[in-house]
Amino acid sequence: MSAAASFRVEKDLLGTLEVPAEAYYGIQTLRAVHNFRLSGVTLSHYPKLVIALAMVKQAAADANRELGHLSVAKHAAISEACARLIRGEFHEQFVVDMIQGGAGTSTNMNANEVIANLALEAMGHAKGEYQYLHPNNDVNMAQSTNDAYPTAIRLGLLLGHDTLLASLDSLIQAFAAKGEEFAHVLKMGRTQLQDAVPMTLGQEFRAYATTLGEDLARLKSLAPELLTEVNLGGTAIGTGINADPGYQHLAVERLAIISGQPLVPAADLIEATSDMGAFVLFSGMLKRTAVKLSKICNDLRLLSSGPRTGINEINLPPRQPGSSIMPGKVNPVIPEAVNQVAFEVIGNDLALTMAAEGGQLQLNVMEPLIAYKIFDSIRLLHRAMDMLREHCIVGISANEARCRELVESSIGLITALNPYIGYENATRIARIALESGRGVLELVREEGLLDESMLADILRPENMIAPRLVPLKA
Amino acid sequence: MSAAASFRVEKDLLGTLEVPAEAYYGIQTLRAVHNFRLSGVTLSHYPKLVIALAMVKQAAADANRELGHLSVAKHAAISEACARLIRGEFHEQFVVDMIQGGAGTSTNMNANEVIANLALEAMGHAKGEYQYLHPNNDVNMAQSTNDAYPTAIRLGLLLGHDTLLASLDSLIQAFAAKGEEFAHVLKMGRTQLQDAVPMTLGQEFRAYATTLGEDLARLKSLAPELLTEVNLGGTAIGTGINADPGYQHLAVERLAIISGQPLVPAADLIEATSDMGAFVLFSGMLKRTAVKLSKICNDLRLLSSGPRTGINEINLPPRQPGSSIMPGKVNPVIPEAVNQVAFEVIGNDLALTMAAEGGQLQLNVMEPLIAYKIFDSIRLLHRAMDMLREHCIVGISANEARCRELVESSIGLITALNPYIGYENATRIARIALESGRGVLELVREEGLLDESMLADILRPENMIAPRLVPLKA
Amino acid sequence: MSAAASFRVEKDLLGTLEVPAEAYYGIQTLRAVHNFRLSGVTLSHYPKLVIALAMVKQAAADANRELGHLSVAKHAAISEACARLIRGEFHEQFVVDMIQGGAGTSTNMNANEVIANLALEAMGHAKGEYQYLHPNNDVNMAQSTNDAYPTAIRLGLLLGHDTLLASLDSLIQAFAAKGEEFAHVLKMGRTQLQDAVPMTLGQEFRAYATTLGEDLARLKSLAPELLTEVNLGGTAIGTGINADPGYQHLAVERLAIISGQPLVPAADLIEATSDMGAFVLFSGMLKRTAVKLSKICNDLRLLSSGPRTGINEINLPPRQPGSSIMPGKVNPVIPEAVNQVAFEVIGNDLALTMAAEGGQLQLNVMEPLIAYKIFDSIRLLHRAMDMLREHCIVGISANEARCRELVESSIGLITALNPYIGYENATRIARIALESGRGVLELVREEGLLDESMLADILRPENMIAPRLVPLKA
Amino acid sequence: MSAAASFRVEKDLLGTLEVPAEAYYGIQTLRAVHNFRLSGVTLSHYPKLVIALAMVKQAAADANRELGHLSVAKHAAISEACARLIRGEFHEQFVVDMIQGGAGTSTNMNANEVIANLALEAMGHAKGEYQYLHPNNDVNMAQSTNDAYPTAIRLGLLLGHDTLLASLDSLIQAFAAKGEEFAHVLKMGRTQLQDAVPMTLGQEFRAYATTLGEDLARLKSLAPELLTEVNLGGTAIGTGINADPGYQHLAVERLAIISGQPLVPAADLIEATSDMGAFVLFSGMLKRTAVKLSKICNDLRLLSSGPRTGINEINLPPRQPGSSIMPGKVNPVIPEAVNQVAFEVIGNDLALTMAAEGGQLQLNVMEPLIAYKIFDSIRLLHRAMDMLREHCIVGISANEARCRELVESSIGLITALNPYIGYENATRIARIALESGRGVLELVREEGLLDESMLADILRPENMIAPRLVPLKA
Repeated sequence: MSAAASFRVEKDLLGTLEVPAEAYYGIQTLRAVHNFRLSGVTLSHYPKLVIALAMVKQAAADANRELGHLSVAKHAAISEACARLIRGEFHEQFVVDMIQGGAGTSTNMNANEVIANLALEAMGHAKGEYQYLHPNNDVNMAQSTNDAYPTAIRLGLLLGHDTLLASLDSLIQAFAAKGEEFAHVLKMGRTQLQDAVPMTLGQEFRAYATTLGEDLARLKSLAPELLTEVNLGGTAIGTGINADPGYQHLAVERLAIISGQPLVPAADLIEATSDMGAFVLFSGMLKRTAVKLSKICNDLRLLSSGPRTGINEINLPPRQPGSSIMPGKVNPVIPEAVNQVAFEVIGNDLALTMAAEGGQLQLNVMEPLIAYKIFDSIRLLHRAMDMLREHCIVGISANEARCRELVESSIGLITALNPYIGYENATRIARIALESGRGVLELVREEGLLDESMLADILRPENMIAPRLVPLKA
Repeated sequence: MSAAASFRVEKDLLGTLEVPAEAYYGIQTLRAVHNFRLSGVTLSHYPKLVIALAMVKQAAADANRELGHLSVAKHAAISEACARLIRGEFHEQFVVDMIQGGAGTSTNMNANEVIANLALEAMGHAKGEYQYLHPNNDVNMAQSTNDAYPTAIRLGLLLGHDTLLASLDSLIQAFAAKGEEFAHVLKMGRTQLQDAVPMTLGQEFRAYATTLGEDLARLKSLAPELLTEVNLGGTAIGTGINADPGYQHLAVERLAIISGQPLVPAADLIEATSDMGAFVLFSGMLKRTAVKLSKICNDLRLLSSGPRTGINEINLPPRQPGSSIMPGKVNPVIPEAVNQVAFEVIGNDLALTMAAEGGQLQLNVMEPLIAYKIFDSIRLLHRAMDMLREHCIVGISANEARCRELVESSIGLITALNPYIGYENATRIARIALESGRGVLELVREEGLLDESMLADILRPENMIAPRLVPLKA
Repeated sequence: MSAAASFRVEKDLLGTLEVPAEAYYGIQTLRAVHNFRLSGVTLSHYPKLVIALAMVKQAAADANRELGHLSVAKHAAISEACARLIRGEFHEQFVVDMIQGGAGTSTNMNANEVIANLALEAMGHAKGEYQYLHPNNDVNMAQSTNDAYPTAIRLGLLLGHDTLLASLDSLIQAFAAKGEEFAHVLKMGRTQLQDAVPMTLGQEFRAYATTLGEDLARLKSLAPELLTEVNLGGTAIGTGINADPGYQHLAVERLAIISGQPLVPAADLIEATSDMGAFVLFSGMLKRTAVKLSKICNDLRLLSSGPRTGINEINLPPRQPGSSIMPGKVNPVIPEAVNQVAFEVIGNDLALTMAAEGGQLQLNVMEPLIAYKIFDSIRLLHRAMDMLREHCIVGISANEARCRELVESSIGLITALNPYIGYENATRIARIALESGRGVLELVREEGLLDESMLADILRPENMIAPRLVPLKA
Repeated sequence: MSAAASFRVEKDLLGTLEVPAEAYYGIQTLRAVHNFRLSGVTLSHYPKLVIALAMVKQAAADANRELGHLSVAKHAAISEACARLIRGEFHEQFVVDMIQGGAGTSTNMNANEVIANLALEAMGHAKGEYQYLHPNNDVNMAQSTNDAYPTAIRLGLLLGHDTLLASLDSLIQAFAAKGEEFAHVLKMGRTQLQDAVPMTLGQEFRAYATTLGEDLARLKSLAPELLTEVNLGGTAIGTGINADPGYQHLAVERLAIISGQPLVPAADLIEATSDMGAFVLFSGMLKRTAVKLSKICNDLRLLSSGPRTGINEINLPPRQPGSSIMPGKVNPVIPEAVNQVAFEVIGNDLALTMAAEGGQLQLNVMEPLIAYKIFDSIRLLHRAMDMLREHCIVGISANEARCRELVESSIGLITALNPYIGYENATRIARIALESGRGVLELVREEGLLDESMLADILRPENMIAPRLVPLKA
């Protein structure tokens, strides 16, 4: 009998298969596992998606109970099963690859089967005794993959959204704190990698906080705008065929209550069944954040370049020895990793875009890839931002003397003198400085173009880093 | 003297050049023309950008006048020059390539020089007599390319936005009209290209209107959210160096009045000088519209495939003979062209994304490409949507009999019978139908599973395309 | 003392860390694990990369031994450690994330540390007793990450190449076999989704074999062209600083022998250290294969669309029930999954492209992402092609009668009659057929335009699917 | 009668249109012009494509003449017309937008009509008198757009290939010349933007020549490998329906002779009709060149950054004043423009990739976009490389003293001393140098770790930039 103990036989439209005895998933999940050995990334990698699936199943069961289509006993058993998934139990049973054909059917069936078998056990039956409670007829009642799955994706993204926002917010705070810490550090601004005009290092870091702050605000508002409209109740193609007329309203209402998310029914269910626009724009927004993070990390690597042959205005905290062959070398490994994450997110956006474009007629069969790429981008960004803050930003220090020295030796300083000595003089001095290697202040003093008190006044940091009244002539 | 008549000599930091006598642009524009022979697409291809540049110059001149830095005479001459550009005159003088180095300096100087020379002539001077009114000192007063140029791009996009919205809106109306026209045409819905369940052709076209309607709403709200914050007054890097403290406020206020757009000053000018986030998201949104258009056109091509060996549910209006070798062939050339425009827009978004990522420190030097790609995407989408509506959508007709016949012969019809005859019967009938090539209704009748009146009731279109109360058992 | 047993303390430039006692990796690997929690995909996911790293270490050790820089005992211990890794042991010790900063330093150090500790144990020492054999001084001797790592990536790709080629070749054979099996099945060809002219289903499948055959040939030739030139011996930046003049030659020669791959030293080591061109083109080629697979799968889904409302010329083998709500529905899940893999590969190519573009000066620090994405694309393609062949292509059957029926009812048939009845007649007949819904043959017969024997001759399949002498007039 | 003079009436399947009297194109071209107002870029922008079309028409006419299907008089007239197009005349008659539906039919008809009307005039007839010589029946005889158009694209690319190669070759020569010019300039190499080890500026520039040299070789070999196999003779879908059995061989042979390109017939015409693989890989290769150019230009901008607050090892020739507000500023405008071209080419590759993926069944209807993007990328790269060489590379000068000074002050110098003073000493010295701001040589001298003659020997440039025998101990 030991062999009998190791598996059970299940049956579907295509025949029978041996399902491992301890598995809560069933034959259809197993077929998907056999079919799709692709990314190696299973559904269980994204807990919020699993939880969202369970919430959808719970909401549907509640609506079906209320409409009298599901018995009290079955409803109770399904509810208990969903609750356990929502608490984080049994996620390892979600074994299907994130990349799958079938427009999410395998994901939906994985949820249906796990819930059915958990419920069966709770009802005192063995796994697989679907005559007592059926994955399709009961757990999936009044649903189609085509409405349950897109609803779960949206909900899963909403459930995970706060984590993303929190990471981003903490990173912003870290940049803002550095902005204050470095508020007094005068340095040269650079445009086109050429010396431009003075600013403070604090302004530079505050700008990073500002630009990411715009993303925080945008992400905060976009998620509810894009993701709260769900197509639950549309069944196969949005016509709601075979669904009770009262079902859609009840199910979405229950889902909103269960999840605590402000979900509402889509106005046009036909459209909502196949439309991927929300994901395209949301991913486009994640791409924007990736672009900004990459730009900032490029800057951090430039500003910390050196120590002797680069800009060297700031020091990044050392995180690991930089070279086995070059003693003392420490590299900007954290920003470098963020750059790569950014490129990955941009690549994900492209894959998602192509998947969205590839939808046909009443359904987008590429939705599994869309879900995968968007969850992946969020997780990568969240982790990369935590890493960046924790292992890099908070530990950055300024090389204040170096910053000051670069300002003083810079040709760009002449811009500040421009209104006082005139453009012609300024250009001439700039050229002499460039050719001779001398400093512009030295030359201005030598030519007596400005007296010392005037110079001192012009060159006070607070006067150089903001607009000020200068003797311009009309 | 004929040679003298053909050019004038101008001078800048790098030396002298011969500028064509009739040219209103000057030496710096000419250098840019010599430097950048790349895309062959000049600034003049985007009239809204030229107009926006003129408005920025006008606003700056107004502010400078009010602050007393610009004389009444110069202000009047500059104002007249700007007005002419705003009216659409002299756009052919904007000869610089859209792809250019220098972060837009050449674009800014092209505007400065054209305005200066127009103003000089108005003042009774010859072109090039910059001692009377100078492109840099007067037209560009208190500005830097780094604030004037990004401001003009944003404004140019705002100015052209209504055209885009109008094209999109008209297209939506065309789809909606077809939605009504085809409201009574019952057809099979398809998921995964497989027969699914019935719907109406009207629902299908209304869904196109809905999905594009979401883009209309989104584009309408995104433009003011993303594009109205301008960095005018930040000068070189956002510190406002050398600008009058009163300038920023005045200049932006004037620009808002002149343009009729709700422009406001950016809160963090350092950030606003280098930040490309608004363009990345705006382009991401254009990409979304492109994806939707492409998906819709894929559908139109599928639905009109045939006439005999495809789906053939709709007819697209013939636009041109389809083949020289195959008599009578007419192809879906309009949707095909829209697909290609969509791919172009997606490619543009990528180029723009890379340009945004490539910005460094206080400025994004790739901004010319960003401007080019976003203006190009808008123009392409606008033209493609007009083409699609005018040459295709409004002329679409339905093959009603064919649609009805496909429904009746479809296996998918069994889904509607499912609640009445049970899933087991339904599956069995479906299989027999498939294997025998017979119709499901025929088989159901043969087996006496449903009586005629019941069947007739179930199969009434209005009963198949929406939820309805069916005898489901709990 | 139980706590003491659970870890050992290691030390590096930045301080000390507690390394798990059973770990063969050391402190630098551990730092990397702490630093980079990003993709969750560790080096161990790509066995060929791990094996390639071990081969590089072996080759270096051999060269160092021969040059007298490494003792016999150390060489023996290192060799034994490398051999175990090459045999597939201890791969779970490669715990660093594929996405990492530091240009691969962490990957290189993971290999150095695992090999050192395996060697130490073999020598009778405890793990971490680096005074007897050092990860840097001994295992990494004469190497830098900057030459060892790129060399290992190239070698890893070469080692895995046959698997990719074999999958592709099997898939081609499967298509070719179907090409023969369906050689007699006459069907309509379609251009622009419109009925075109007859062909055989065999020609259609043979064309898939042909197009993939071109990729097989190309991939076969590209790998040696692109990947056999290695920069081992260049050390930090390609100048070979601190390397024995005899080292490069010996090390590469040893590596070629150990790996069985025709590796040669790069001619310009400075260039070879930072150049990512080989990966960009190789990935571009993988993208091409992905594009072709996606196009083929789009076709398969179109050709099998239906069963009643689509083209339905072929049947894909059912792999899993298609719908819980629609009885009897079976979907083309395998091609759908391949499409998604293709989009992923295209997204990978973009991420890799951006990483390649982001390299600066003497090194490309984004190389870990490049390695990750290219190994990932290969694995995905390999798995997807196996899946496609095994679960789809070999089981495809033709609906021969349906194919024939579509030919006979097609308007496109008129093209074959064109040379005999003239373009004017042909166009007229086509129009009448289209408007009346009647068949072109029927109409031709009715009008007596061709006699029966002539018609029969023209319509013989072998006469319609290849050029033939027709009565064209000059 | 003046109105009559301004247009002629032509007729096709869909009705009549008024064609401008002076136009050599006809009604079908005019329909396309009305249909497709999209990119604004007409066929005439790509002369090699127009010439290639004419060559295809000539070759077809020659074959048809030889087979006796085309009269001597018609052949003579067509030949004369083709010759004029090949000479560059009448290109302005190619007025169709590069983005078009119809899979190139409009392009093919534009050629057919222009050639027909030129031929008619040569025969003494008026334009539009197609009864004497017909665009379809005569000029397009035995062709379909589906074979003539792809053949012309391939041929057009081959015809323009030398120009691309020449630009690339000249650029390589320019880099190589700088490599020699700067062979003696010692500088610090940088990895991860951190000081690494010494090299020469000559090595750096030679590496640019090397990496581009690899692209030259690759492009040179890829073009014949990818583009010489043509599908001329396949007619509509590759079956060669309605073509004379002798036609294909003759036509391709003639085309090879006329064009001077080694064209051969495709082995599998069905495959060759729809396959876009050659373009995908060719564009992937152009993308690689773009990536390399962008990386090089990033480097040039970094190396010339400053003049005072950056690296400043080299000077780029000033091309235009850099700023109106910052006197004396000169920017790296040429490399900046190249970066943007590179991003454009990468975006083009994506659009082309999507177009290739979007092909269906026997034809890729997106081929016009594919042709457009690949011709555009080539033109952009060719122009950008000429610009880069002419306006930037040849004028680059080295700041030799600055380079030397950075080497001497660098911490990275310690790597060269590593083998002599040991890793521990080296690391310690590096740390003291870093903390104290002192030089490593100074500290080594102070500690007496090496005597002066030894130091001098180690530090000789030729000893630092290549492998050398050092006292390593086994």
